Amino acid sequence: MKGQTVIFRRKPRITAVSTIAGTKECEGIVGRYVETALSDDMFGESTYEKAECKMLSHVIDGAISNAGLRREDVDMIVSGDLLNQIISASFAARDFSVPFLGVYGACSTMAESLALAAAFVDAGYCRHIVAATGSHFASAERQYRYPLELGTTRPPQSQWTVTGAGASLVAARGEGVAVTAATFGKVVDFGVTDVNNMGAAMAPAAADTILTHFRTTGEEPEAYDLIVTGDLGALGSRILKDLTWEKGLDIAENHVDCGEIVYNVLEDEFQGGSGAGCSAVVLNSYLYSKLMSGALKRVLFVATGALLSTVSSGQGESIPCIAHAVTLER
Amino acid sequence: MKGQTVIFRRKPRITAVSTIAGTKECEGIVGRYVETALSDDMFGESTYEKAECKMLSHVIDGAISNAGLRREDVDMIVSGDLLNQIISASFAARDFSVPFLGVYGACSTMAESLALAAAFVDAGYCRHIVAATGSHFASAERQYRYPLELGTTRPPQSQWTVTGAGASLVAARGEGVAVTAATFGKVVDFGVTDVNNMGAAMAPAAADTILTHFRTTGEEPEAYDLIVTGDLGALGSRILKDLTWEKGLDIAENHVDCGEIVYNVLEDEFQGGSGAGCSAVVLNSYLYSKLMSGALKRVLFVATGALLSTVSSGQGESIPCIAHAVTLER
Repeated sequence: MKGQTVIFRRKPRITAVSTIAGTKECEGIVGRYVETALSDDMFGESTYEKAECKMLSHVIDGAISNAGLRREDVDMIVSGDLLNQIISASFAARDFSVPFLGVYGACSTMAESLALAAAFVDAGYCRHIVAATGSHFASAERQYRYPLELGTTRPPQSQWTVTGAGASLVAARGEGVAVTAATFGKVVDFGVTDVNNMGAAMAPAAADTILTHFRTTGEEPEAYDLIVTGDLGALGSRILKDLTWEKGLDIAENHVDCGEIVYNVLEDEFQGGSGAGCSAVVLNSYLYSKLMSGALKRVLFVATGALLSTVSSGQGESIPCIAHAVTLER
Repeated sequence: MKGQTVIFRRKPRITAVSTIAGTKECEGIVGRYVETALSDDMFGESTYEKAECKMLSHVIDGAISNAGLRREDVDMIVSGDLLNQIISASFAARDFSVPFLGVYGACSTMAESLALAAAFVDAGYCRHIVAATGSHFASAERQYRYPLELGTTRPPQSQWTVTGAGASLVAARGEGVAVTAATFGKVVDFGVTDVNNMGAAMAPAAADTILTHFRTTGEEPEAYDLIVTGDLGALGSRILKDLTWEKGLDIAENHVDCGEIVYNVLEDEFQGGSGAGCSAVVLNSYLYSKLMSGALKRVLFVATGALLSTVSSGQGESIPCIAHAVTLER
């Protein structure tokens, strides 16, 4: 580890991916690259939480079969989600007779699980690991905010939790997108207390990890075709660009945020998409496809997470955030 | 990885530990080995959750200073806890300017974080990592069951969440207890739905991991001075011994459960201690001390976790469980 960055010498690679997303999510450009488009956000289940769990299970299975593997070929599943006690991930893992590593990084989970999976493959511990996460608009709303039935008004700085899930199968060898480095983020808290403004809360954490990554690797932003953040949304994305620019790193040219591109138009969702499923869906559909086709050669994937709970906010605490960065190369 | 087991060739070691525990926890034999005994379970804070977070922060700092290190010498903190969105771990990590890996494995967190830390050190990614977890009786009661103020009666099969936290500093070199192997558990669900009977729910997961560990390594139970489970309690511990015996592995001779030994007498706590803090406190005080003194030479530490939430139970789901095993040697 150099600073906060681990370089993966053996270049573990993502040999297969799988995604699923809700009706609203599949209307946009990203939606065209999603493997399974839901026609019903309940996914045939009786509760939102069960639908979320089923989505996660679906993409884990999808990534395994897309890689031409069987369940018993997988050494480990690394997963987490936004629900209390990460029940989606744990209950999804119950369907598989595979060792399970539960993680929690809020919406940074895709990067955290991917970095962990790459580390375990690079170290030679595992041959095949699935990294996966997801979220569901309705389960997130009722857990973190208000039940949908109340029809509560949303403030303009808010974002819309993505209904969707994504999984990456990381392997020691094979054709795919190489994971060449990971920068593990610190918990950063700039004192934002507005639970409806996650973008503003998370932007400093994204800036910290991105600045650290470039300082450690000695690279320039131009070394990447894209620097993709997880779910800062339109407002958070602008704050990130300002914060990094102030520190002498101009990423405006090749920065894009998954929350900004996941929906067709941003009007209804105010600042855009959020949730662990946001970056998981964009990475494992659109970005993976562009990397495999050669349209993108090098991407810095920086998923961001707000580590609050309703209890911490209720007790007057501000919102600590984190971001982990993963370098993807074709 | 052989099966579910990783052998750590470079033998990463726990060079320092730190523990803190509540008044009730410090009355027993284990309590004598606890570094910081609280005289007030609120730890000077205004809420139980803040007290829990402060305990975690305290032991992370304690492990670092007990190892003769400074905060900036630590490459990573791996931690999680029982509260929604693991706020204790995330907020504790906010105090440290160190990369943070949030994990969730319920009461199996001490083994999960320790195994991850050992893996990262063994792979050469990190020199010093802190693995830590904790729990607080009052915050767990009000989140998972009822607020203490209600004075709800406890059923006889229930356990008592330990108020306490423990941290291990895992280093690439130095004097200490070596972490030589880790067996990562699968999610196992035998259909138990009684949320007051965690021991019965978790015993099959512990049995699965222990049986897998011995099958993979080819060892006999006699190869260990102790096979220590996390928080099965008296009832769960008996079920585990039955389950392993049925499969031809007799661990009765050298098995002990942290939940059974953490309290002075079991009467008030029915089946004994539980919570992420239970195994974290016992490992990082009593067990570490006995390993360092040579009284114990080889210990299999198997922390167990029940991966339910109030929502999953409310929706009629059974309790999926997990156990991770770590081999400790002096």
